[in-house]
Amino acid sequence: MNTLKLNGEVLLRQLRELGEIGADAQAGGRTRIALTDDEKAGRDRVVAWMRELDLEVRIDRIGNVFGTLRSGADDEAQRPLMMGSHIDTVRNAGALDGCYGVLAGLAVVRAFREAGVKPGRSIAVGAFTNEEGVRYQPDMMGSLVYAGGLGVEAALDARGIDGTRLGDELVRIGYAGEMEPGAIVPHEYFELHIEQGPILEAENVRIGVVENLQGISWQRVTVQGNANHAGTTPTHLRHDAGWVAAAVSTFLRALAVESGTTLATIGMLSIEPNVINVIPRKAVFTVDLRDPDEQRLRDAERRLAQFMGEVARKEGVKIETERLVRFEPVVFDAALAQAIEAAAERRGFSNRRMTSGAGHDAQMIARIAPAAMIFVPSRGGISHNPREHTDDDQLIDGANVLLDVVVERVGVA
Amino acid sequence: MNTLKLNGEVLLRQLRELGEIGADAQAGGRTRIALTDDEKAGRDRVVAWMRELDLEVRIDRIGNVFGTLRSGADDEAQRPLMMGSHIDTVRNAGALDGCYGVLAGLAVVRAFREAGVKPGRSIAVGAFTNEEGVRYQPDMMGSLVYAGGLGVEAALDARGIDGTRLGDELVRIGYAGEMEPGAIVPHEYFELHIEQGPILEAENVRIGVVENLQGISWQRVTVQGNANHAGTTPTHLRHDAGWVAAAVSTFLRALAVESGTTLATIGMLSIEPNVINVIPRKAVFTVDLRDPDEQRLRDAERRLAQFMGEVARKEGVKIETERLVRFEPVVFDAALAQAIEAAAERRGFSNRRMTSGAGHDAQMIARIAPAAMIFVPSRGGISHNPREHTDDDQLIDGANVLLDVVVERVGVA
Repeated sequence: MNTLKLNGEVLLRQLRELGEIGADAQAGGRTRIALTDDEKAGRDRVVAWMRELDLEVRIDRIGNVFGTLRSGADDEAQRPLMMGSHIDTVRNAGALDGCYGVLAGLAVVRAFREAGVKPGRSIAVGAFTNEEGVRYQPDMMGSLVYAGGLGVEAALDARGIDGTRLGDELVRIGYAGEMEPGAIVPHEYFELHIEQGPILEAENVRIGVVENLQGISWQRVTVQGNANHAGTTPTHLRHDAGWVAAAVSTFLRALAVESGTTLATIGMLSIEPNVINVIPRKAVFTVDLRDPDEQRLRDAERRLAQFMGEVARKEGVKIETERLVRFEPVVFDAALAQAIEAAAERRGFSNRRMTSGAGHDAQMIARIAPAAMIFVPSRGGISHNPREHTDDDQLIDGANVLLDVVVERVGVA
Repeated sequence: MNTLKLNGEVLLRQLRELGEIGADAQAGGRTRIALTDDEKAGRDRVVAWMRELDLEVRIDRIGNVFGTLRSGADDEAQRPLMMGSHIDTVRNAGALDGCYGVLAGLAVVRAFREAGVKPGRSIAVGAFTNEEGVRYQPDMMGSLVYAGGLGVEAALDARGIDGTRLGDELVRIGYAGEMEPGAIVPHEYFELHIEQGPILEAENVRIGVVENLQGISWQRVTVQGNANHAGTTPTHLRHDAGWVAAAVSTFLRALAVESGTTLATIGMLSIEPNVINVIPRKAVFTVDLRDPDEQRLRDAERRLAQFMGEVARKEGVKIETERLVRFEPVVFDAALAQAIEAAAERRGFSNRRMTSGAGHDAQMIARIAPAAMIFVPSRGGISHNPREHTDDDQLIDGANVLLDVVVERVGVA
């Protein structure tokens, strides 16, 4: 049985302190968008905390930061158990998304340090660059590059929405490391994260054992119809781009309800000319489709494409689609999920298997190592918002599960 | 039989010349928004043309301009046959909307002048203030005030989208007249206008005999839902304001198709926060409902309200509606419609009875005098657009029908 003790007080204090960097007194929350001055300040703080724990700090060429506590047996070739997440944020974010996973990783290391023992296998804590993708696309970039899914040169050449080059900004803030991304291949990877959804809270469950992660399909749809006078154009002569967008929206809702697993969202929509008595000539909207099963996700994409073909013919409009993002679903490692479940059980924490609806660095690292995730409840399911909240005791519960799993996997020397 | 001859050349030239005032070389079309400097220039030109025809020009307190050709018998108490429309425009408008009706009226007067005869009853040509309602609300303001539907003081106090007071602008451009609006009560009123819709062109019909004008119901609908993460929120826990807007749109289309007479349009729509992976918390859209029958229009409004109540309950959102405009349908004078039809027949012009889908000054004047309208085809049904177009021969045909009707109604002295 695990005799190490998690220092919940320090974990909560570090979450608060990191959360103060980039804080927005007016609008609430904090803004530490990747590779800005505020995010550099966040990185500096996390690196300082790693050094306080006497970890070996390494930074790779895409700016991912790793702090490693070596086992006694590590001849620098041992694959570490890795815990990690990210510390960049969206605009006016909560304090927990990402930061919780990184700082809980440090809390696990601290438990070893405070007990004066070493892990049976090296353990590392990673903070991956630009998970949020607010300034530079794609999101989850640091872990994607790390797992070999995107070349480091291409990533460094990414242009930001502010016109900057990612590589230049990385140099500017002093986080262009020398290590090749992926040089430290994890033996196993665990990511502790807030759920960012309503399920655990709604079901009053303490720990989510994340066994898979939905595939994500994003596309932008442009409907080109004809603008005409709303009072003089008979219904059968209309080419109403706005109505077509609405028809797609109601089709997607029916598809989602029928499927039971597919989620479908139209998050962005604009119409032109946007005048009260003019039939819209143009509608541009995004479709966000998700499903934990690749075949079902493809079915949803196919059915959507088919519907759009039909409705375009009927209404006499032109529909163009542009793929923005496509990630296949990820099935996490079954043994690791079982280990998380067992750890939660030993603590007497109610738990459930679940699917991650959001994307996470773990889905990238799962390409190169066994990986799994632990979720704790999010109040109201709210995230990417200053009102993001998880109770302190829930945060400590999650970190304890992480600690127990790590100790169980690596042993204490 | 009518021996007067319409001077088509002058009519077409005046349409071109008036269309050059406020022309926009870059974006195309012309912009003569009510009571701007460009619209004053347009008024000045029209008044000059009235004076060339030696008409008695009178301006009322809301800026409506009337040019009257008196009959021999007119002791200044005779009610004139009035022709009219407006010369203000929307932004980047065509040259015909409104102007055609005013200048064709002058062409009818010119036919009397060129023949050296007088009408058996006085005839007047009116140009009503602010028909378009771009700068000051409501639209069709000059004719509405003229017909007693809105007090002149209230209209003068209208605030423009640019913060100006209508009455001040009227004084500034020199068109604040002294006559009380409505002082000249028409004996009958005819308005010649481009269709602004596709029906005459689609059916290859030359003359539209407008027997009624749709009722118009405009409302602004605000849907308040909850923003949530698109990837983590199960469908049954969503309160998706964007989907509710879409459901209303598809409901309205079904209603319009089923009804056959009701037209329904969502012309304006915006959603918040308008982020690809966030379920919309808010949707604001407009609904434009039209029907030539008041009972059917009320039915449509009632069914819409009922549907919105149901969908709000189901989705757990709040829906608020705000009435923006409500005009009952107008049935034009049957005898005048018959006279127009007979005139078209005598000329051998194909014609059909029709409903006006758009609002016109004639609907206001119909409150105080028998009124009817004549339509000519609009290419592609396009109006409020630089591409608005009617062929020259079609414009002359319409003006000839107007001339014939006027001669038939008033006689030649």
